[in-house]
Amino acid sequence: MDVVEVIPSPDQYAFTFGGVAPLRTVRPGTALRLWSDDAFSGALTSATDLSGDKVDLSRVNPQTGPFHVEGAEPGDTLVLHFVAMEPARDWGASAVMPFFGGLTSTERTAMLQEPLADTTWIYELDRARNTVEFVAHHSDLRLALPVAPMLGTVGVAPAGGEVRSSLVPDAFGGNMDTPQMRPGTTCYLRVNVPGALFSLGDGHYRQGEGEACGTAVEGAMTTTVVVELLKGADSLGGPAWPRLEDDASLVTVGSSRPLEDAWRIAQRELVRWVGELHGLHPLDAYQLLSQVTEAPIANVVDVNYSSVVKVRTDLLPHAPAYGGVHAELRARAATLL
Amino acid sequence: MDVVEVIPSPDQYAFTFGGVAPLRTVRPGTALRLWSDDAFSGALTSATDLSGDKVDLSRVNPQTGPFHVEGAEPGDTLVLHFVAMEPARDWGASAVMPFFGGLTSTERTAMLQEPLADTTWIYELDRARNTVEFVAHHSDLRLALPVAPMLGTVGVAPAGGEVRSSLVPDAFGGNMDTPQMRPGTTCYLRVNVPGALFSLGDGHYRQGEGEACGTAVEGAMTTTVVVELLKGADSLGGPAWPRLEDDASLVTVGSSRPLEDAWRIAQRELVRWVGELHGLHPLDAYQLLSQVTEAPIANVVDVNYSSVVKVRTDLLPHAPAYGGVHAELRARAATLL
Amino acid sequence: MDVVEVIPSPDQYAFTFGGVAPLRTVRPGTALRLWSDDAFSGALTSATDLSGDKVDLSRVNPQTGPFHVEGAEPGDTLVLHFVAMEPARDWGASAVMPFFGGLTSTERTAMLQEPLADTTWIYELDRARNTVEFVAHHSDLRLALPVAPMLGTVGVAPAGGEVRSSLVPDAFGGNMDTPQMRPGTTCYLRVNVPGALFSLGDGHYRQGEGEACGTAVEGAMTTTVVVELLKGADSLGGPAWPRLEDDASLVTVGSSRPLEDAWRIAQRELVRWVGELHGLHPLDAYQLLSQVTEAPIANVVDVNYSSVVKVRTDLLPHAPAYGGVHAELRARAATLL
Amino acid sequence: MDVVEVIPSPDQYAFTFGGVAPLRTVRPGTALRLWSDDAFSGALTSATDLSGDKVDLSRVNPQTGPFHVEGAEPGDTLVLHFVAMEPARDWGASAVMPFFGGLTSTERTAMLQEPLADTTWIYELDRARNTVEFVAHHSDLRLALPVAPMLGTVGVAPAGGEVRSSLVPDAFGGNMDTPQMRPGTTCYLRVNVPGALFSLGDGHYRQGEGEACGTAVEGAMTTTVVVELLKGADSLGGPAWPRLEDDASLVTVGSSRPLEDAWRIAQRELVRWVGELHGLHPLDAYQLLSQVTEAPIANVVDVNYSSVVKVRTDLLPHAPAYGGVHAELRARAATLL
Repeated sequence: MDVVEVIPSPDQYAFTFGGVAPLRTVRPGTALRLWSDDAFSGALTSATDLSGDKVDLSRVNPQTGPFHVEGAEPGDTLVLHFVAMEPARDWGASAVMPFFGGLTSTERTAMLQEPLADTTWIYELDRARNTVEFVAHHSDLRLALPVAPMLGTVGVAPAGGEVRSSLVPDAFGGNMDTPQMRPGTTCYLRVNVPGALFSLGDGHYRQGEGEACGTAVEGAMTTTVVVELLKGADSLGGPAWPRLEDDASLVTVGSSRPLEDAWRIAQRELVRWVGELHGLHPLDAYQLLSQVTEAPIANVVDVNYSSVVKVRTDLLPHAPAYGGVHAELRARAATLL
Repeated sequence: MDVVEVIPSPDQYAFTFGGVAPLRTVRPGTALRLWSDDAFSGALTSATDLSGDKVDLSRVNPQTGPFHVEGAEPGDTLVLHFVAMEPARDWGASAVMPFFGGLTSTERTAMLQEPLADTTWIYELDRARNTVEFVAHHSDLRLALPVAPMLGTVGVAPAGGEVRSSLVPDAFGGNMDTPQMRPGTTCYLRVNVPGALFSLGDGHYRQGEGEACGTAVEGAMTTTVVVELLKGADSLGGPAWPRLEDDASLVTVGSSRPLEDAWRIAQRELVRWVGELHGLHPLDAYQLLSQVTEAPIANVVDVNYSSVVKVRTDLLPHAPAYGGVHAELRARAATLL
Repeated sequence: MDVVEVIPSPDQYAFTFGGVAPLRTVRPGTALRLWSDDAFSGALTSATDLSGDKVDLSRVNPQTGPFHVEGAEPGDTLVLHFVAMEPARDWGASAVMPFFGGLTSTERTAMLQEPLADTTWIYELDRARNTVEFVAHHSDLRLALPVAPMLGTVGVAPAGGEVRSSLVPDAFGGNMDTPQMRPGTTCYLRVNVPGALFSLGDGHYRQGEGEACGTAVEGAMTTTVVVELLKGADSLGGPAWPRLEDDASLVTVGSSRPLEDAWRIAQRELVRWVGELHGLHPLDAYQLLSQVTEAPIANVVDVNYSSVVKVRTDLLPHAPAYGGVHAELRARAATLL
Repeated sequence: MDVVEVIPSPDQYAFTFGGVAPLRTVRPGTALRLWSDDAFSGALTSATDLSGDKVDLSRVNPQTGPFHVEGAEPGDTLVLHFVAMEPARDWGASAVMPFFGGLTSTERTAMLQEPLADTTWIYELDRARNTVEFVAHHSDLRLALPVAPMLGTVGVAPAGGEVRSSLVPDAFGGNMDTPQMRPGTTCYLRVNVPGALFSLGDGHYRQGEGEACGTAVEGAMTTTVVVELLKGADSLGGPAWPRLEDDASLVTVGSSRPLEDAWRIAQRELVRWVGELHGLHPLDAYQLLSQVTEAPIANVVDVNYSSVVKVRTDLLPHAPAYGGVHAELRARAATLL
């Protein structure tokens, strides 16, 4: 399988889902190797760079794309299989930005308190040990943490003619910020517009669940992804909200506020998915999943919060989702590595 | 170490934290072997028993206790180390109850829709395979699920003279419904009244994160627990909200609504705990934990929702919490097994 | 009609609903003239008194009561008609307290920011003009505001054996903080325990809707109230949540978090009330009320938020609630003034 | 003053804010007389028309516009003064639509219950009495309700290149659904794109606060509005969120979820506005407004909820907002009536 390499120039960065002309057209079955800049568009390069001085808020969370998928029509299901994610720089950056994050007031959870101190941390990457290093500002602690690459943001053009900031997650995907979006994962997204127009970015060298301070170890990333398309999947139980699959689990992601609604969306979507896969009545699926799901929070910091619900497939009867496309893509991916 | 066995009679069941005379007084260092009834007080014994007919809502979530701990005073920290949890019956019960659960309107998320159909599932326990069996109502699926015993409810008498239903979790612990409350875990709770007056119950043979439908595989449980007391822990960084520790992790639990506030409470409590343990400035602890915490939802169904935040201790420098009391209790517990 | 006067001594102040022995037993039909201290128990007497120094947090929001109502049994409806509320001091106090209020992080909406500056405002009462005077701290503005007396807190002992802080509103009433609780209003509360055990306090010389900063113009108050009892009202459509009636409106109050749930509770309770009064199907009542209700927020600062829904009775057909008890009490009250 | 009349054809209806070419360019100072269709695009004409059958969900909440305002640049403040709103048909329609409304689960507050029964109510307009008539479906009640015309939706193109559904309110205005948007009101909106690109629609012949069932008495409307522009208002305290002014009040509108965040946004915006107008320190403005604001909920049904905070100007010192533009527009409007 050939791999098409795309490295956008800064003027090609996309900052919305929808509303951007396609960067390229790809055929289903294509493998792409995509470079994406970090969420700050590379503006923070030292621990003395403050986000308030350096970060251009009109250029945060740049996406690589969008890609027009040939033949994709509304109601189809776009399939993105992540083969590899490789740090594209030797350092990542994280920041506590004024009025952004989970343990601070924000423009939406509006209060009168002063902001937290604008602070930047640079994490040097040790490729040999595959770690990034946390360096405390106010004490001597240095701590090597395992690299666990993931993409914060993957999505398609929204429905209804909307154009949404790349900072917001919703039914179209977007800035979900879940560590589940990692190599080995297949992502299913409902197609809303001809060509699907997907893009991705917001590489994280690692991130805790919740993304508490609002930023992960943000880093430029090279992502290898195989693109597939399921035609007419809507009638076959296509996803209303983003679904993920890996070798061990089925995963759904809901995004809304308050956080319980994000969870409700994800839990109900998994009730639907598992119910359809296994021919279960909704109440039986609801009951069964109540005893077996895991529910790691994705983010509590974006304009919509995201919550993940997942189930280990080894707890369920064998029934490959979408005709076993994940396993097939895993096999294809193996030829790329 | 001696083990004191307590099996309450039904008229001794406690349905509140606070407001109940102590069942027994125990000295710090005591091991207890406590039988607790299931959350329905044993009312559901067959899949044709409907909660609307059989469950007495004034007798749900019975607790075994309270226990007066000698010498415990407000500001101290109660330490409960869970040695073992053994199913005390050969079956567990779960139910979708009208207007209770995560994917239904409730008395608090009040709507006008009809309730979901009142439905009961009985899970037979296979002690040899250590599984419980899900049996679908509307199809033929039967599925053996691993037993993973835990307690939904552990708490002390609340502060401020309050008496709270055993259905509600809050700063005093209570009905947190997190699978983290399992054998091998040490639970730290702030003492609010002389004697602490802790109780426990709500055994689950297994439960998914979120406890989506409102009930786990509810079962009578025999719990072996060692009781300890840390004097004056408030000044040493005692817990404001429940903290848990096991061999791998430090864990905090927040309970409130909306769910993001439960998470905020837990995340901030862990910022404090890790900050104190490692001498980190709050912003450094906030940043570090943003990259390493896990955030599994506990419940989205109780009067307060509960959210867990945890960090693997092998990602942090070595620094035993509370003088290493968890390791010491693990060693003591080993002599009981 | 005789009026029984009660002025509690500080050691008689009640700080919970439930859990307190009755201050006095009263017969239905009794008029009471009750003195209540301000929410700070009188601790703030000058604009230089800071809440952090002066306010004893174990003694905030003192209630006058509880009163045991003869013959009141669970399921009955307690009726409290407010005849008069008179400022009992010549000044009121308000404060921005650290980590308390609507535009600050709190112990439940937990963040890492510094608190707002602890600040106290004293409002002198001008009895002749019936105004209180706002005096700015940081500029020269002085502003006379009309006195509009109300009670922040009115409630009965909770159900289920619970004892709740006087700071929290819930189905039992409590700290709802709505300006609707004013002279001329009749309050209906479901009786949960024998004797009802109602108490009241938290006088406000005036308060904006939402009680944004967390405290109103807090003042000692003398409240004249007539006590009545509706027997067996549960079967006749007694209130599940607090209901209010005045000459112009029917009002319901819901209390929970998030705020939309408080509103949902109140809106559904009014759908029930108006539906029963006018023989309307729930969907017709839902539709009709959607076009005519007012929805002033009560508080966004307490442990539960409170939201009011009201409907002007002149928009509806004539149908006196509860057999016209409000009009009858208005007539009786007139003989007291 | 001339009045420019605009009646869009159905193919000219706008269903988003942003993303639509201007319908017309207008100069500041222009008066417009705009016809807008109802929120169902006229699809419900009888009480037997069900929304599920008749309403095209891709064509709900049509807007008239957008209008390009000459000279408007990002950071300026658009001023829309509403002179008159006249029902343009002799009937309005309202509906309980499946999974839409405040007392039902929705696609975002996702549950498993069945929807409420799809039901439509037609309100005949009596122009002589200026009433609309509620007709119950399930009983004989007919009730004449006063007409109180308002616009549910008024907004400009969003910032950041976003295009948003006309169903959602946010900082750009949009579907706020507040009865404050009525004749005599001046609306201030921050300009985000050259020309501002405002549109309006969603006429309501009357609406209760909260818009509980999700739809008001929806009707085609003829709105007379005068357009003005404040240049460079950002530096002079221009609005971050929609501000309204009428002869009696200053009003702010916040839109988000949960509802307390909508309220927080509005309350803080009013703290800023009143603070700037009267030279008050934020803490003094916070305190003063806590005692005088009204807080009527706008909607609890849209993708973002909206909450209003208002203050009667007669409670404050005299200080005309924005140089008295409201009074000036009132005077100009008088010449149009």
